[in-house]
Amino acid sequence: MASKESKEKSKGAAVQLKTPKGTRDWIGADMILRDEIFTKITDVFKRHGGVPLDTPVFELKEVLAGKYGEDSRLIYDLADQGGELTALRYDLTVPFARWLAMNKVQQIKRYQIAKVYRRDQPAVARGRMREFYQCDLDIAGTYDRMIPDAEILRVVYEIFESLQEQIVIKLNHRQILDGVFAVSGVPSDKIRTISSAVDKLDKVPWAEVKKEMVEEKGLAEAVADRIGEYVKHSGDISTIVTLLKADATLCANSDVKQGLEDMELLASFLDAFGVPSNKVSFDMSLCRGLDYYTGLIFEVITLPSTAAAADSNGKPAKKKGGEEIQVGSIAAGGRYDNLVGMYGKTQIPCVGISFGVDRIFTLIKAKREKEEGTSRVRETDVYVMAFGGGSFNGMLKERMQIARRLWDAGIKAEFTAKTKPRLPQQFKAAEDVPLGVILGEDESANGQVRLKVLGSGGAETDEKDRGQLVSEEDLVAEIKKLLI
Amino acid sequence: MASKESKEKSKGAAVQLKTPKGTRDWIGADMILRDEIFTKITDVFKRHGGVPLDTPVFELKEVLAGKYGEDSRLIYDLADQGGELTALRYDLTVPFARWLAMNKVQQIKRYQIAKVYRRDQPAVARGRMREFYQCDLDIAGTYDRMIPDAEILRVVYEIFESLQEQIVIKLNHRQILDGVFAVSGVPSDKIRTISSAVDKLDKVPWAEVKKEMVEEKGLAEAVADRIGEYVKHSGDISTIVTLLKADATLCANSDVKQGLEDMELLASFLDAFGVPSNKVSFDMSLCRGLDYYTGLIFEVITLPSTAAAADSNGKPAKKKGGEEIQVGSIAAGGRYDNLVGMYGKTQIPCVGISFGVDRIFTLIKAKREKEEGTSRVRETDVYVMAFGGGSFNGMLKERMQIARRLWDAGIKAEFTAKTKPRLPQQFKAAEDVPLGVILGEDESANGQVRLKVLGSGGAETDEKDRGQLVSEEDLVAEIKKLLI
Repeated sequence: MASKESKEKSKGAAVQLKTPKGTRDWIGADMILRDEIFTKITDVFKRHGGVPLDTPVFELKEVLAGKYGEDSRLIYDLADQGGELTALRYDLTVPFARWLAMNKVQQIKRYQIAKVYRRDQPAVARGRMREFYQCDLDIAGTYDRMIPDAEILRVVYEIFESLQEQIVIKLNHRQILDGVFAVSGVPSDKIRTISSAVDKLDKVPWAEVKKEMVEEKGLAEAVADRIGEYVKHSGDISTIVTLLKADATLCANSDVKQGLEDMELLASFLDAFGVPSNKVSFDMSLCRGLDYYTGLIFEVITLPSTAAAADSNGKPAKKKGGEEIQVGSIAAGGRYDNLVGMYGKTQIPCVGISFGVDRIFTLIKAKREKEEGTSRVRETDVYVMAFGGGSFNGMLKERMQIARRLWDAGIKAEFTAKTKPRLPQQFKAAEDVPLGVILGEDESANGQVRLKVLGSGGAETDEKDRGQLVSEEDLVAEIKKLLI
Repeated sequence: MASKESKEKSKGAAVQLKTPKGTRDWIGADMILRDEIFTKITDVFKRHGGVPLDTPVFELKEVLAGKYGEDSRLIYDLADQGGELTALRYDLTVPFARWLAMNKVQQIKRYQIAKVYRRDQPAVARGRMREFYQCDLDIAGTYDRMIPDAEILRVVYEIFESLQEQIVIKLNHRQILDGVFAVSGVPSDKIRTISSAVDKLDKVPWAEVKKEMVEEKGLAEAVADRIGEYVKHSGDISTIVTLLKADATLCANSDVKQGLEDMELLASFLDAFGVPSNKVSFDMSLCRGLDYYTGLIFEVITLPSTAAAADSNGKPAKKKGGEEIQVGSIAAGGRYDNLVGMYGKTQIPCVGISFGVDRIFTLIKAKREKEEGTSRVRETDVYVMAFGGGSFNGMLKERMQIARRLWDAGIKAEFTAKTKPRLPQQFKAAEDVPLGVILGEDESANGQVRLKVLGSGGAETDEKDRGQLVSEEDLVAEIKKLLI
């Protein structure tokens, strides 16, 4: 028996104490900030009639199959333990499409906040994890052109206003892109691969992208140069639309024609929705990786607030391949009209946005730390303590009764779970708690306690100053006054 | 190309449209109710100084190994795709213990709400799923006896008061149980298996349990009878403590002595915390399955409100093996002082509670449906519509501008995403939305709209009555008055 026990112990001690690669724990102040971000995002989703959806963390493997192209190798499979073959969800879009088809839902604005899983090489410092949150709003249904698309962009605008982040929404349109590639002379079987080369323009200079297209992908140099002329354009919607409309060859392409009409409609809807035009940039180089997009595509980038302020005409200061001031994409999406039809007979047009909550968290946390220093790990407002002389019994019951009084009134309160705690120990435990209620035997005999505003850290509080005398009956009211 | 496409299509059509066995989607009204329950539970956790924790959905397999006894076969493994071997979490307690040991945390009140995974035979109708939520609060740290235990029970009491559910907390103490088994003559290597037989007493009559102990588990009949005498007792804490204290043989056992002291302390702390004594029942037959409990154990059962009211002395009407009025356990927990030490050198005593949110959800949903009928699937407060004669252009821009005005004011508003929607279509879409704003060309020319309180279902609303005239400037204020 003893030997078995010690064997187990040594085995237990050998367990690696870590989370799996690319995953992390979230605790205290980080969780509170993350919840604050979730609340701000969902408040806007709800304001637009969003219906919350929650799906299982794993799906049947066949539901995920054939949806992610070569990224499918990043899908986490569950072990075959008998029964169905399943895999962890890779995003929230495919489960939503599965749900729509399964329930034959014709129209909905649905939102979902949940973790997704990708067996990618993690880069923890840059916030790329294997388990991370996505926060999606999608509008499904057959509506008139660009109305839901414009509402999605209005949602993006509202959310980042609420989060006080300076952003620009980069836009492009798959039909315009396809037309540009066709008119430039890209063979139809090369459009997707050339598209993904162009998509790198926010990270590498044109020369490198061209090299990839010509040398690796076998595109004629003249074709690459023609593409280069188009994708260098960005600016507000009407400027770029005007510019493209002047190009008769391009506009002869029916995809381009439809795409430009969409962009004009979008500009007028964004105006009606009060989305400032400097929040949006029609960027011809934006391609987005995923195959399933069919119309408008978009990506949200942040601007450091100083840079945004310095830019006199309010347009994003973006220089391709040059000195980038953006810190990366924090939300992205687009229109996908054919995905739901992959599951059944009914085609349901959709447009949606996915917020990268972890990146948004990283941005806001950095800002908060600069502004405010450390944050609280819990929300306790009152710490109940007791203090007395040599024969002091600790007043445990009395502390419990006061805590009960506060809890009954909905006040967040704690006390030290010891019969006779020392006063410094109690002040230490009250670090970051704004108020202290201090019990003493004399005060208690008169039905009174002392109420004390604690210092920025409870431990630094002057322990001699024991606060104002308050009757036990008035305590809740006095605390509520101080907590407003 | 065409043949490949049609092949893919037919393959796509063959995809099974379902969630994996034992899992489900959550949508709309169900999600809103579940969030309401989460909020009520976390409000109480926060009121007691709870710190939120989130851990990855999967853990290293070795972290879960050896923690769940024979239930380990229910653990979902992830496939070995190279790299670490991982498995989905089975509960929230083991990840918490891993986190404590990994971060060398000495004391914390942590809460976590997250899904857990068990490859059990699902019973969807009875709410037993393979993926389900747990909602845990645990107090870790070396404190004085029974203080954190009492606070956990106070938390249980507060939460079910807030949820307006009639409950009873059944209590027992592992040391008392162990003492009872020892004094009755159970060999020490049979204590766990006999304990799990006794645990069935809330489902099957004593005769069956005795049969299992004697015939299947080889216990002497006299020993079983002695156990039967003890485990039949239940009642308020002081009654049972007095009864057991009168048993000199039993009290000679040091485990029992310690356990009884604990129960007396607990009774006095619950009194200080204002937990009514009729909310608690010291039930000698309560055993709880998990091996790791070391002290107080508890289980929360609901009472149908009528039965609770009918019971004149306020005590739970429980009859072992007879007519059960309880609908099952909806929360459970206990003290586990040795689990964290399995991961390292430091032993950290813990006591915790886990709420079965899905069962609580089922109870409250049934009650709500009886009281209120159907619930709303989204929270939209205002539907913006337009109406006009033959040459009517649909007023899309105007509807957008009014919606924008409402969103700017934080009001939850929608409109139909069509250029010229028909009025019945708009009223249908406004089902369950309390207010309608109706635009017309004449009113709009005067800078006015009509504000209308919609019927219980928008579709049933009298479409002739177009509500009160309000200037666009006053609209937000008028709506806010109606929404209070």
